[in-house]
Amino acid sequence: MNIAGETVRLETLDATALARGIAAGAFTSEAVMRACLDRIAEREPDVRAWAHLDAEAALAAARAFDRSGRTGPLGGVPFGVKDIIDTADLPTEWGTPIHRGRRAGRDAACVALSRKAGAVLLGKTVTTEFANLHVGPTRNPTDLDRTPGGSSSGSAAAVADFMVPLAIGTQTTGSTVRPSSFCGIFGYRPTYGEHRLHGVMEASGSLDTLGICARSLADVALYRDVLLGVPPEPVGRRERPPRIGLCRTHVWPQVDPTVQRRVEEAVDRLARAGASVTEIEMPAGFEALTDAHRWISSFEFVRNLAWEIETRWDGISDTLRGGRIADGLDCPLARYIACIELAETCRARMATVWEEVDVLVGAAATGEAPLGWDAFAGADLYKMWTALHVPALTLPLLEGPNGRPVGLHFVGARHGDRALFACADWAWRQLA
Amino acid sequence: MNIAGETVRLETLDATALARGIAAGAFTSEAVMRACLDRIAEREPDVRAWAHLDAEAALAAARAFDRSGRTGPLGGVPFGVKDIIDTADLPTEWGTPIHRGRRAGRDAACVALSRKAGAVLLGKTVTTEFANLHVGPTRNPTDLDRTPGGSSSGSAAAVADFMVPLAIGTQTTGSTVRPSSFCGIFGYRPTYGEHRLHGVMEASGSLDTLGICARSLADVALYRDVLLGVPPEPVGRRERPPRIGLCRTHVWPQVDPTVQRRVEEAVDRLARAGASVTEIEMPAGFEALTDAHRWISSFEFVRNLAWEIETRWDGISDTLRGGRIADGLDCPLARYIACIELAETCRARMATVWEEVDVLVGAAATGEAPLGWDAFAGADLYKMWTALHVPALTLPLLEGPNGRPVGLHFVGARHGDRALFACADWAWRQLA
Repeated sequence: MNIAGETVRLETLDATALARGIAAGAFTSEAVMRACLDRIAEREPDVRAWAHLDAEAALAAARAFDRSGRTGPLGGVPFGVKDIIDTADLPTEWGTPIHRGRRAGRDAACVALSRKAGAVLLGKTVTTEFANLHVGPTRNPTDLDRTPGGSSSGSAAAVADFMVPLAIGTQTTGSTVRPSSFCGIFGYRPTYGEHRLHGVMEASGSLDTLGICARSLADVALYRDVLLGVPPEPVGRRERPPRIGLCRTHVWPQVDPTVQRRVEEAVDRLARAGASVTEIEMPAGFEALTDAHRWISSFEFVRNLAWEIETRWDGISDTLRGGRIADGLDCPLARYIACIELAETCRARMATVWEEVDVLVGAAATGEAPLGWDAFAGADLYKMWTALHVPALTLPLLEGPNGRPVGLHFVGARHGDRALFACADWAWRQLA
Repeated sequence: MNIAGETVRLETLDATALARGIAAGAFTSEAVMRACLDRIAEREPDVRAWAHLDAEAALAAARAFDRSGRTGPLGGVPFGVKDIIDTADLPTEWGTPIHRGRRAGRDAACVALSRKAGAVLLGKTVTTEFANLHVGPTRNPTDLDRTPGGSSSGSAAAVADFMVPLAIGTQTTGSTVRPSSFCGIFGYRPTYGEHRLHGVMEASGSLDTLGICARSLADVALYRDVLLGVPPEPVGRRERPPRIGLCRTHVWPQVDPTVQRRVEEAVDRLARAGASVTEIEMPAGFEALTDAHRWISSFEFVRNLAWEIETRWDGISDTLRGGRIADGLDCPLARYIACIELAETCRARMATVWEEVDVLVGAAATGEAPLGWDAFAGADLYKMWTALHVPALTLPLLEGPNGRPVGLHFVGARHGDRALFACADWAWRQLA
């Protein structure tokens, strides 16, 4: 593609730029889709990010968009969808052989809202088994010997590798933030409860949210609004630097020392750029949320999987049987409810933190993606935040000891997602 | 069926008695299923409670249970399932022609947990369109010229008419409590969040719960535990009378004067039986939850239905288009989030109420089932309670001006469902 005398590789543009270019007639949705498919043809044998892909159907849908005269905030932009999310026109197999060939016959709410905004489905991205602990075939595009992270492995890897500009994931623990950090992209877990999950496999209803994998903060904000079904608003520009809380949390000793240092250096730079920085310790008792998350997610997961456990036991991996399922069957009701009540109490107590700071900053993973296939490395880092129902963002700003990407983590107040974006945008402009 | 010299009509027993009788060898699951099917053959042309029924398959499943030697808390007991809840072996059509013939291929969590407990699926019960405002064909078995109430119309009517001892419904506003009150049975909406909804059509995820329709309080408690996937505990017997709050709420002026008087008389009798009775006014500002419920449920509903709205508009009723869908499209994000935050605040403020009383008592409907097909009469009565996420029970204890059933409503603290059952049991023993 040639624009204003320069060759533009369409697959490298973000969704915001692609939607603008298509709307302006600079290129077509078909050209964008073809660029993505070419990239996939080249890289997919190594990366293995896709569970289902129908190149001809995707091109036909892009051509149909071009012919339609339709507009929309994501007009003509390809998107990928984690394979625990229903689509009308591709299988949705939840990462398990038990549901091989399963077809939902309709779009999940988030998929229908994407299409309503003009986005064109490219394909379904690899998920771990039932979005849980047993990993899929995907490899980290920044280093094929490393895990991409899970459970939204394919969504993060595909976006990072320029196969697609946007992908929907989900998060019950760290399933969007972690793979986004490992693969070096923008990852976003929204405030719990704001986005609808109709047509998304429930893992743990008290914790599940959608997630967004993207290559710019503008794309994250745009796609959040599309998935909320509201008119998109651009990321607000902060007039004044934010009040930043450096929040190491009780998981800090698990964080790689190089990453610890990089987080502290980044926060120092933000302070020098004018942000007020406070060290924030989470209130006493919050460390118990790590354990509470374990029991809530396990108790709920095994009940959601009752049909598979009762009738398709042979199709379930040993990883899942011995891990989440054993935990879930082991947890009595009283413990589950005590954990739910602890999480509720802690959510209310977060109000005192937001009196002091606008945003909490820390590491988005305990380190760079490890060598091998431990897609769930550093899970404890996410449990407290996810149980608190707060929105979280990872920005690709740091590197680990081997030069692999690590994200800087930004956490905001519940329902304060737009304010969180504005804080992260300010930080990005200081650090990127 | 002849037990100890007396003829027992099996279809009239509750699930607790049926499970005991089957376990003791007094009768078979097949005999119970046949009794239910005979009742259905006789009454279904008038009542029209069932969306899908396969009599031969249901009998075969009952015989398979009898042969299996299996036991379980609901061993051999037939159950019905609202048709927005997936089952492996019958269609799940969500009450809309758009999804005619839809097959999910697996059981929802609640269905799988029912079968795990030994229950045998009888069939799918009629729901209103998408569990929303457009009514189905079901009639009230206590008076065929009256609505059974919605949206769990078939579940309540089938249980009330002795077609099945237990049925699963759902509640987003009053969709289990209202039809249970209208049809004269026990209806239960659990604490929000405790029961899994995997495989249940999401109407409004911030409000949706399962619901239980039954013919005894023991059955409600037993089925609650089965659907939680925990070992059942019988209803606790209170040693002392409970502290009762007579709570008329701001909706009281909408309640039929006869029903108002009957509620007050019932509470007087409970006072004479030893309960301490306090008049409880909900804290100031709670009346705004009625409106908040409207915006939360509408905002979420239209997003969940994005696929149908975008691609199957012609299949949606005018009732739904002009009501819930118009509201949902009209509601800006800021109002939705303000309503979510109001509901959260009010939930926390309920703690002061539970310092004073153990249970709140009021009317379970604004009156008896009206003549005609207004399945959603008196909706305002339920909105505050449902938004508060508290558990609620209706007990068939009152009558309206025309002698039709009305329930006495019992509301407990969140996660205090077992304590609520014990209070309701004490009241039942004084009043029934």
